[in-house]
Amino acid sequence: MRYLSKLFQPVITIPKNAKIKNTEITCKSQKLLLECGLIRPTGPGLFTILPLARRSLDKLETLIRSCIEAAGGQRMAVPSLTSASLWDKTGRLQEIGPELIKMEDRHGKKYLMAPTHEEAIADLLADVGPLSYKQLPLLLYQIGNKYRDEARPKHGLLRAREFSMMDAYGVHESERCARDVYCAVTEAYNTMFKTLQLPVHRVEAPSGDMGGSLSHEWQLPAPAGEDSVYICSGCAGTSLQGGPCHKCGGETKEVQSIEVGHTFLLGSKYSAALSALCTPSSGPPAPLYMSCYGIGITRLLAASIEALSSDKCLRWPDAIAPYSVCIIGPKEGSREWQTHGIGAISELYQTLKPARPGDVIVDDRHQLTIGKRLMMADRMGYPYIVVIGKAALSNPARYEVYRSCDATASVQLLTTTELLELLSNEDTQRIKINNVA
Amino acid sequence: MRYLSKLFQPVITIPKNAKIKNTEITCKSQKLLLECGLIRPTGPGLFTILPLARRSLDKLETLIRSCIEAAGGQRMAVPSLTSASLWDKTGRLQEIGPELIKMEDRHGKKYLMAPTHEEAIADLLADVGPLSYKQLPLLLYQIGNKYRDEARPKHGLLRAREFSMMDAYGVHESERCARDVYCAVTEAYNTMFKTLQLPVHRVEAPSGDMGGSLSHEWQLPAPAGEDSVYICSGCAGTSLQGGPCHKCGGETKEVQSIEVGHTFLLGSKYSAALSALCTPSSGPPAPLYMSCYGIGITRLLAASIEALSSDKCLRWPDAIAPYSVCIIGPKEGSREWQTHGIGAISELYQTLKPARPGDVIVDDRHQLTIGKRLMMADRMGYPYIVVIGKAALSNPARYEVYRSCDATASVQLLTTTELLELLSNEDTQRIKINNVA
Repeated sequence: MRYLSKLFQPVITIPKNAKIKNTEITCKSQKLLLECGLIRPTGPGLFTILPLARRSLDKLETLIRSCIEAAGGQRMAVPSLTSASLWDKTGRLQEIGPELIKMEDRHGKKYLMAPTHEEAIADLLADVGPLSYKQLPLLLYQIGNKYRDEARPKHGLLRAREFSMMDAYGVHESERCARDVYCAVTEAYNTMFKTLQLPVHRVEAPSGDMGGSLSHEWQLPAPAGEDSVYICSGCAGTSLQGGPCHKCGGETKEVQSIEVGHTFLLGSKYSAALSALCTPSSGPPAPLYMSCYGIGITRLLAASIEALSSDKCLRWPDAIAPYSVCIIGPKEGSREWQTHGIGAISELYQTLKPARPGDVIVDDRHQLTIGKRLMMADRMGYPYIVVIGKAALSNPARYEVYRSCDATASVQLLTTTELLELLSNEDTQRIKINNVA
Repeated sequence: MRYLSKLFQPVITIPKNAKIKNTEITCKSQKLLLECGLIRPTGPGLFTILPLARRSLDKLETLIRSCIEAAGGQRMAVPSLTSASLWDKTGRLQEIGPELIKMEDRHGKKYLMAPTHEEAIADLLADVGPLSYKQLPLLLYQIGNKYRDEARPKHGLLRAREFSMMDAYGVHESERCARDVYCAVTEAYNTMFKTLQLPVHRVEAPSGDMGGSLSHEWQLPAPAGEDSVYICSGCAGTSLQGGPCHKCGGETKEVQSIEVGHTFLLGSKYSAALSALCTPSSGPPAPLYMSCYGIGITRLLAASIEALSSDKCLRWPDAIAPYSVCIIGPKEGSREWQTHGIGAISELYQTLKPARPGDVIVDDRHQLTIGKRLMMADRMGYPYIVVIGKAALSNPARYEVYRSCDATASVQLLTTTELLELLSNEDTQRIKINNVA
């Protein structure tokens, strides 16, 4: 059994307007994650991810991987420590300058901690190239930490200096081929956000510095968002610019939002600068056509909490809550405790285990009342809270089942059979972790 | 179906004594991983991990996680970007000085990219402390990249400047409590190396700079090893010093080996320097007792290849080979091809899939002879190579099954039923990845 009392979860209460060790509290996700013992700042824009948040990230990573691999993605890993000379060749060493974390090694060679890897991937492709058109398209992705020396990191995990990303790079013969992969990744993102049940808007964006001909931002409406999307009241179309909807002419409304992903057709900006070539079906070798795709993993976690939580209570997409079921047993010394003791808890745990393997946690702080623990579990936002209360003494035993995602739902009294049915029938996809055969 | 022709695997042939882009070839694992298209150097001690090697790392990480969590480990993540002042407080900023990758942020604050996290963990414990003895023991672990500015990085992934590690930190009330966790982690390591079927020796080591009273190195004998273990011909006991065996007095023999893991009782060196306190069951608050545990993940991958491979052919622990089964279909235009066509391959793939979900790869380069592809698959070291040859035309169809881990084993001719039985009966544990429910 997994016991809550064994979890490393340093809960704190933050006074209003407090500063905690270099970090101002400026938004809901930051405050709740700190107070509930899920993250801890170590410096400006730097956070330790504590075990419950790390579990949530595990699930999120597994989901992202499965979606991007369905689109043909192959996982790989490029070093974070990147030669500054590569970025000099594409001009971004100067362009992004102060946002780069730069250093020299013991021999005086210049490096940076990469915020993104277009240069490194183009250099790899040049190194192994020229690639034949027969080997294309490729979709290479990685999951790992990125670095950005933000002038003013803020909003906790929403704008950090070290953060986790999924970044994927498409390698193509031509723009036409790139568009096929672009569509496949778009489909992957749609599946992912649907699984998370998040209303993410895909909005066409100016391609800007990245070069290339097409790009979209993926924006999640949330109060702490630093971006805006304009949603049309008529056709529900979205854009990044205000004014009448360009599709139907309807009125648009500005909504604050958080960018949680992007998709870009890059063209040959990076491949040309770094000589990454393709041997096409006919004609001489030419620079590869590249595309790139990103999901901010730690940011998406915080953004979904920002979008779903109340001021007082954490709420997660069901699929990535740290545990999906929390069992609360009777208080020590109560009538239910005396009748059932600890046995009722382990029996219920064993019953639920096959439906949610590794994903059930027991709040074993039996010295606390059920009410107090229920309040804390609600604040944590476990999707299902199952209480062994008075009705557990009836025959057949019934358990109080609370659904944290739906505050208006009243408590249900369910037998184990009904409870198992509820957990099995849920159409939300669950993400399994810890999976050794 | 997963097709070999779609894999990004830039195979190369390295001339003898070659230097490849900043990297001298000095050992077997480095040469084979480069030649077979599994890694690619990007600079001294820096490597891109290509998709097949990344798959192997996924399996290895899953195994390590499952073992350390069985010992009570809770996954978390501390930033790599670490304030230099923390390391100044424990004296290690000066001690390890030139091996640290150091930088300043845009405000002039000094940081380093951490090679290990004793300071960061002790600082976290101080920040959330004092911890009550009731909350202990804790075993916190993470998996991520570490940084070490080696003067002379060499041997590929065996001594890199950016490398992946599992590092775990035990938090205890006393040395006695720490020893219980130390034993549990020792058991976890034993399980892990047994699953990998690697003859790793646990050798008592001087604790040296780390402080504390007990430490062991975990050494894997291999030719490129920079360490040595002394193995007694009498009792098979091992130590790090030569001379007669201190257990039985027998003769010892020196064997080159690679350190793939360590276990340390640290004592209170870090907790005292950083004021990480414990409130004991009686008496005043005192510094926590810490222990630490590490497994070099990329190093263990390379070390196992170093230990198992021949000069010409890659060999992996079965549990972490990139794919466990490779199917080779008939050559285009052959009699078997004309009779069965592509149908026989997908039929066999579908049959084997339940036994090895996501872990079967098809060499679909049908223009090449079976012999040529068999040679390449053997060089890659897929544990099972299944050839659809002449016997596939008999009734019932029989497949040629090669076992790459056992060069002396002759080819077996098996029906699908026999083949499935072979794959299911194997006692080696397999590690599943890509597991969305």
